Amino acid sequence: MAKIGFIKLGNLGMSQVIDLVQDEIAAREGISVRVFGTGPKMGKDEAAATAELKNWGADFYVMISPNASAPGPTAAREIYKDVPCIIISDGPTKKEDREALEAAGFGFIIMTVDPLIGAKTEFLDPVEMASFNSDAMKVLSTCGVVRLIQEELDKVTTMVDEGKSGKDLELPHIVAKPEKCIERAGFINPYAKAKGLAALHMADMVAKINFPACFMMKEIEQVTLTTAAGHEMMRAAAQLAIEAREIEKANDSVFRQPHAKKGGRLMTKTKLYEKPQ
Amino acid sequence: MAKIGFIKLGNLGMSQVIDLVQDEIAAREGISVRVFGTGPKMGKDEAAATAELKNWGADFYVMISPNASAPGPTAAREIYKDVPCIIISDGPTKKEDREALEAAGFGFIIMTVDPLIGAKTEFLDPVEMASFNSDAMKVLSTCGVVRLIQEELDKVTTMVDEGKSGKDLELPHIVAKPEKCIERAGFINPYAKAKGLAALHMADMVAKINFPACFMMKEIEQVTLTTAAGHEMMRAAAQLAIEAREIEKANDSVFRQPHAKKGGRLMTKTKLYEKPQ
Amino acid sequence: MAKIGFIKLGNLGMSQVIDLVQDEIAAREGISVRVFGTGPKMGKDEAAATAELKNWGADFYVMISPNASAPGPTAAREIYKDVPCIIISDGPTKKEDREALEAAGFGFIIMTVDPLIGAKTEFLDPVEMASFNSDAMKVLSTCGVVRLIQEELDKVTTMVDEGKSGKDLELPHIVAKPEKCIERAGFINPYAKAKGLAALHMADMVAKINFPACFMMKEIEQVTLTTAAGHEMMRAAAQLAIEAREIEKANDSVFRQPHAKKGGRLMTKTKLYEKPQ
Amino acid sequence: MAKIGFIKLGNLGMSQVIDLVQDEIAAREGISVRVFGTGPKMGKDEAAATAELKNWGADFYVMISPNASAPGPTAAREIYKDVPCIIISDGPTKKEDREALEAAGFGFIIMTVDPLIGAKTEFLDPVEMASFNSDAMKVLSTCGVVRLIQEELDKVTTMVDEGKSGKDLELPHIVAKPEKCIERAGFINPYAKAKGLAALHMADMVAKINFPACFMMKEIEQVTLTTAAGHEMMRAAAQLAIEAREIEKANDSVFRQPHAKKGGRLMTKTKLYEKPQ
Amino acid sequence: MAKIGFIKLGNLGMSQVIDLVQDEIAAREGISVRVFGTGPKMGKDEAAATAELKNWGADFYVMISPNASAPGPTAAREIYKDVPCIIISDGPTKKEDREALEAAGFGFIIMTVDPLIGAKTEFLDPVEMASFNSDAMKVLSTCGVVRLIQEELDKVTTMVDEGKSGKDLELPHIVAKPEKCIERAGFINPYAKAKGLAALHMADMVAKINFPACFMMKEIEQVTLTTAAGHEMMRAAAQLAIEAREIEKANDSVFRQPHAKKGGRLMTKTKLYEKPQ
Amino acid sequence: MAKIGFIKLGNLGMSQVIDLVQDEIAAREGISVRVFGTGPKMGKDEAAATAELKNWGADFYVMISPNASAPGPTAAREIYKDVPCIIISDGPTKKEDREALEAAGFGFIIMTVDPLIGAKTEFLDPVEMASFNSDAMKVLSTCGVVRLIQEELDKVTTMVDEGKSGKDLELPHIVAKPEKCIERAGFINPYAKAKGLAALHMADMVAKINFPACFMMKEIEQVTLTTAAGHEMMRAAAQLAIEAREIEKANDSVFRQPHAKKGGRLMTKTKLYEKPQ
Repeated sequence: MAKIGFIKLGNLGMSQVIDLVQDEIAAREGISVRVFGTGPKMGKDEAAATAELKNWGADFYVMISPNASAPGPTAAREIYKDVPCIIISDGPTKKEDREALEAAGFGFIIMTVDPLIGAKTEFLDPVEMASFNSDAMKVLSTCGVVRLIQEELDKVTTMVDEGKSGKDLELPHIVAKPEKCIERAGFINPYAKAKGLAALHMADMVAKINFPACFMMKEIEQVTLTTAAGHEMMRAAAQLAIEAREIEKANDSVFRQPHAKKGGRLMTKTKLYEKPQ
Repeated sequence: MAKIGFIKLGNLGMSQVIDLVQDEIAAREGISVRVFGTGPKMGKDEAAATAELKNWGADFYVMISPNASAPGPTAAREIYKDVPCIIISDGPTKKEDREALEAAGFGFIIMTVDPLIGAKTEFLDPVEMASFNSDAMKVLSTCGVVRLIQEELDKVTTMVDEGKSGKDLELPHIVAKPEKCIERAGFINPYAKAKGLAALHMADMVAKINFPACFMMKEIEQVTLTTAAGHEMMRAAAQLAIEAREIEKANDSVFRQPHAKKGGRLMTKTKLYEKPQ
Repeated sequence: MAKIGFIKLGNLGMSQVIDLVQDEIAAREGISVRVFGTGPKMGKDEAAATAELKNWGADFYVMISPNASAPGPTAAREIYKDVPCIIISDGPTKKEDREALEAAGFGFIIMTVDPLIGAKTEFLDPVEMASFNSDAMKVLSTCGVVRLIQEELDKVTTMVDEGKSGKDLELPHIVAKPEKCIERAGFINPYAKAKGLAALHMADMVAKINFPACFMMKEIEQVTLTTAAGHEMMRAAAQLAIEAREIEKANDSVFRQPHAKKGGRLMTKTKLYEKPQ
Repeated sequence: MAKIGFIKLGNLGMSQVIDLVQDEIAAREGISVRVFGTGPKMGKDEAAATAELKNWGADFYVMISPNASAPGPTAAREIYKDVPCIIISDGPTKKEDREALEAAGFGFIIMTVDPLIGAKTEFLDPVEMASFNSDAMKVLSTCGVVRLIQEELDKVTTMVDEGKSGKDLELPHIVAKPEKCIERAGFINPYAKAKGLAALHMADMVAKINFPACFMMKEIEQVTLTTAAGHEMMRAAAQLAIEAREIEKANDSVFRQPHAKKGGRLMTKTKLYEKPQ
Repeated sequence: MAKIGFIKLGNLGMSQVIDLVQDEIAAREGISVRVFGTGPKMGKDEAAATAELKNWGADFYVMISPNASAPGPTAAREIYKDVPCIIISDGPTKKEDREALEAAGFGFIIMTVDPLIGAKTEFLDPVEMASFNSDAMKVLSTCGVVRLIQEELDKVTTMVDEGKSGKDLELPHIVAKPEKCIERAGFINPYAKAKGLAALHMADMVAKINFPACFMMKEIEQVTLTTAAGHEMMRAAAQLAIEAREIEKANDSVFRQPHAKKGGRLMTKTKLYEKPQ
Repeated sequence: MAKIGFIKLGNLGMSQVIDLVQDEIAAREGISVRVFGTGPKMGKDEAAATAELKNWGADFYVMISPNASAPGPTAAREIYKDVPCIIISDGPTKKEDREALEAAGFGFIIMTVDPLIGAKTEFLDPVEMASFNSDAMKVLSTCGVVRLIQEELDKVTTMVDEGKSGKDLELPHIVAKPEKCIERAGFINPYAKAKGLAALHMADMVAKINFPACFMMKEIEQVTLTTAAGHEMMRAAAQLAIEAREIEKANDSVFRQPHAKKGGRLMTKTKLYEKPQ
């Protein structure tokens, strides 16, 4: 029985499903999942509160938050530095910072493709927030990011199943750029893959549009126009991702990797009527 | 400071964002959120584990899971029956069962429109699961369900802010059918509203298609064709929801209700360049 | 020479083409068709008027109307009860009622997928009526219902050609649910088939939305919103059906069954440039 | 009580709904409709058979068929030349021929926009035929042709209601070109109107593509490519018509003209929640 | 080294890229291109000015303009009548006129499918003009016209490379109707080809709509509605062309013919990951 | 009479229409345009050849090419340094380089939004090249770039009309970033504007994808996947631009600025049936 603990500080697109991806039909034996989250906020109080899940004694932890270099996530890492813990975030984008993470014993998957939301009161309300997350998830799921996360977590889980623990667990150190993610998507048709790659690049770029709107702009018209443009780009990226998957459906070549109920082995299938093997 | 605790047993579409909807830009003062989740599973062990969050002493709890009548959620309710707790689920669909919940002191919001996923190893893998959740969230966000949840949680939060606690908190008792949800969506254009209503009816119907596939069918071709049809219907519903919102954008009449940073008051705006009031 | 008489009382989606489906290019030898219709109405006067076509002495009759249990169609059946006659309708949906039809010697094809229009003065005008019928026909044609009707009528026609008549003709007794219809559609790609199946389920559901609007609601806003939602669902179903066929076109795998001019034998082809065999 | 008799020889797009357009919800008092049709064929036998409906003694007749100059329709007109009768067809396109019709006492509405189907065994089967008719009906309904027919038939019906009969009825003499039809569509937005006009021109052009395929080409690849192109153009025209109506929906400006139940007066409304007046 | 001179009088859709199609990546050795253009106008002054490029002494010239029978192009041809010169235009559409061109020693490619723009001050501004040209280019590129032009110019270039010159160069004499162009498009899927053919027919028809608007109509509403309809048809044609290419992408069967850098030989490939041969 | 000379070295998206944007219906009096182009190439030979147009003695010149810092364009500028000349290009992107241009007396408009094509033999053939340029032009036309160019050229033309010449002409010095371009587009609806802005950002980003493919990658699969992704992003950007304009059409608020025939004054209109003023 592998025990996996998820700590969610604030929200990324991937936060929505990260605790689900290893057991998609909720029937996988030999795996136990617990999640502790702090909702939207990720300050020092929230960081301190995450200590709670440590008592559970998971075989390994996954800590997901925006901007892993921010004070909250940094404080939370202090708590988890002596247990196996994988940091999943949209940054740090600097190599030195990532090397420091690795040196401190953490695994990491830095997804520059998890898009920064247009978090301004003038634009974002709960509906727009949820709708944007839907678009983000369409790209993350279809274009390889969900599978990359799932495969990497499954690898560590397999090590646990094999009896490894603590420092013997080899944690991933991955910068999930568009070119890397798309290879995990399993597209058979090359144009579907190209569409998926373009969608990832667009998701990547959303941050470049929304960042100044979130942190620098003040004027209402500029703020709302810019964040709206960022969300339109995310919408367009989702649409490209949908197109890409439709091509694979049209060719009956959707690559699927469900987990076996017993043991959680990854099975594969591509034709819809085919049994997973 | 209102303390709100979310317990997530298994996964519904709404589970993805429910702890975020009251504080969409992570800047609302006077609100504190903690989440305890059990990942995909919702059995008796998971139910027992939820006791952990009770120690936090939230002003009220929100327990979200599929099928609230299942043994796990039922067991979890035993733990939370003496504190203010709102059950959010896609069932029970029988009136007597909901009356029993209310009699036991629970609030509830039963969303028949949160669609049942096609949870069969032959069809569902992590990518398909996440992609389906994206489609579900598109309908839930755009067609009024997210706002209904947010408004109802905000109402209880306001009571807390006003000094009420425990049994004095009036908890919601709502069956969130399509006709009820759509009224919360804030559509100005009546055809956008009609599209949104149709999308909710389709989301509602997905369960009717996926239920026999999940629990009765055995034959590979029948299982995969049926779940694929359920997911296609969800995809079509998402597309209708997108169309509906595009109409409001084209009229610059998207209704938005962001929370004020101070005090969390719901502000409103409809024109993009307008300041929320 | 097979003589086939069509009696149309009121209008179903299928009524638009039912007398054409056995002779699509108007060149099939050995078949003669006459139609008597009563326009939109299907009351007792209209029922009485249908007696006229009986004089023609068709080898068999096809009586199509909405709701076969209504007084008009019931009265019309009295007239045709002693000749071979197939009832085509969207009801009765109760098994006993259908067994009674069969016991009385009638054949039947009950298509729950032929959608109920939003027949309210507040919403429906001639243009909306015709536009809705176009959407209905897109689903009926592409998703197997037209072919089911055509094949069943052809079977009886073949018996006539073989010299059978009157009670010796074996008439069909079919409840055309989505799962049954889709098998006749001839889709090669399984996702196209799943889209078609979803479209049929949606067509099926339109009645559930429009029924209360047609017969129970009074208030103008509720009536128009609900019927508009019903018609939006039909539009979305048509769009799914179109998508399904586009997939088959993209694979050059559209299944076609034209009638041979001589003898009316059903030929088949799938590649566009292929000769029907 | 106005009695209106419809004679259908062969099939046009408009044939599908022509007997329904004056009584769209089947509740108009003071109007009685009978239809006699001959299915797909329109030869001399079929023409002779139409005599049957003359006995009914309608106040006026409407005879619809492809190519009114063909022998069948010409023979049928001989039967109806002494009663008020309106010819509805896609030809004759020559002015002299139409003048001869008028001189013989017939009314006419010649719709060049009712598209010629690709009637070749190599391409057309019952499904393709019905699907094409769906596309045709989308353009005919949305772009003014259905309303033109309905208004013109209503005018004559009004004369009957006023006590006129026989030669005193003024019958319409209209060549329904794209420019004329579009004026009846009631579009408020000028770009919607332009899209509708383009759709009508495309429907008009389908005949120019399908005519040589139907009557001159022999080679399988040329026949199927050409008819497929004709049907693709019809599909594209339907899509433009859909877009046009979506624009009006987005502006809540869909013009509707339902018939009053009592007396059949044409009421109008444009906003969805508005009562027809 | 082949020297090719392009003379552009006024603007056709094809004018935008005609000097680029033989050297798409600007790396073909052995070819030298010069262009002289007169901007939008094509009067006598402009015609006279084209003499300038004659001094360059190209191996052959390509003169492209709308309506080759207009006075400007006619005058320009006088200048180039004694050197090898290919006329590319949307007319003359009369056979005699084209025979006269040939008799005078000119080559020609008459593209009736290069659409006439809605050139009225009341409708066209620089943005609409450029946007229309984008739609035109989408059809011209995807549906075979660009390739036809390129192949024909390459043929003459090859003759030059083989040492031919002046009157020994065999110039093309082609009327580029839809049926001819589509054969050059290289579609593998027959429905993609049918869509492309329909798009070409629509482009062809744009002139029939825009011509009266450009030269006969005066009234503002009629002029703007008609030109808008012409441009909507062009937009719809572009969309069909896009659909056609998407089908080929979905099948990984896009036919490509790049020029080899050395010698400019036409290589071919169809699978995306395949090397051109 | 203002004389404007265009020098085209190699090809940008904007090159296709730049000589047409001041006289869109080819009827503006008082303006004379000549173009000298070198086709796809822009080396030293081509640069030298551009001297030819200098003899014409234009009032001012416009030199358009990719990468103005490349040797060819640099050499061509030497020829035109003593006459009024505006450089239009996608670079230099460094401020110092642009300041040097200005110091040397040149005007410039640097459009980072004119996208770099995927110029590799393994991917690009004449059809793909032309199709990409169509997508580029859709964004450039609809999202403000064409109008920016046109307005700036018109400003200089007006100075010429006012009697200024040579160094007295004030030439533009503009870096046409997405935020600047979109302000020229004239969108009324803010979501249309946001879509247009997103499209421009995507066009901007195409270069970042295609640059390594054009100049660094070698491996066939990587080259073709990357350039295909770049072209997919351009296609998606075009689609967003189309959506943006469709919104304005749906609101009958398309901003148009045609030139008056006499004097070339810019008139404006927004409603389709309105006369330009």
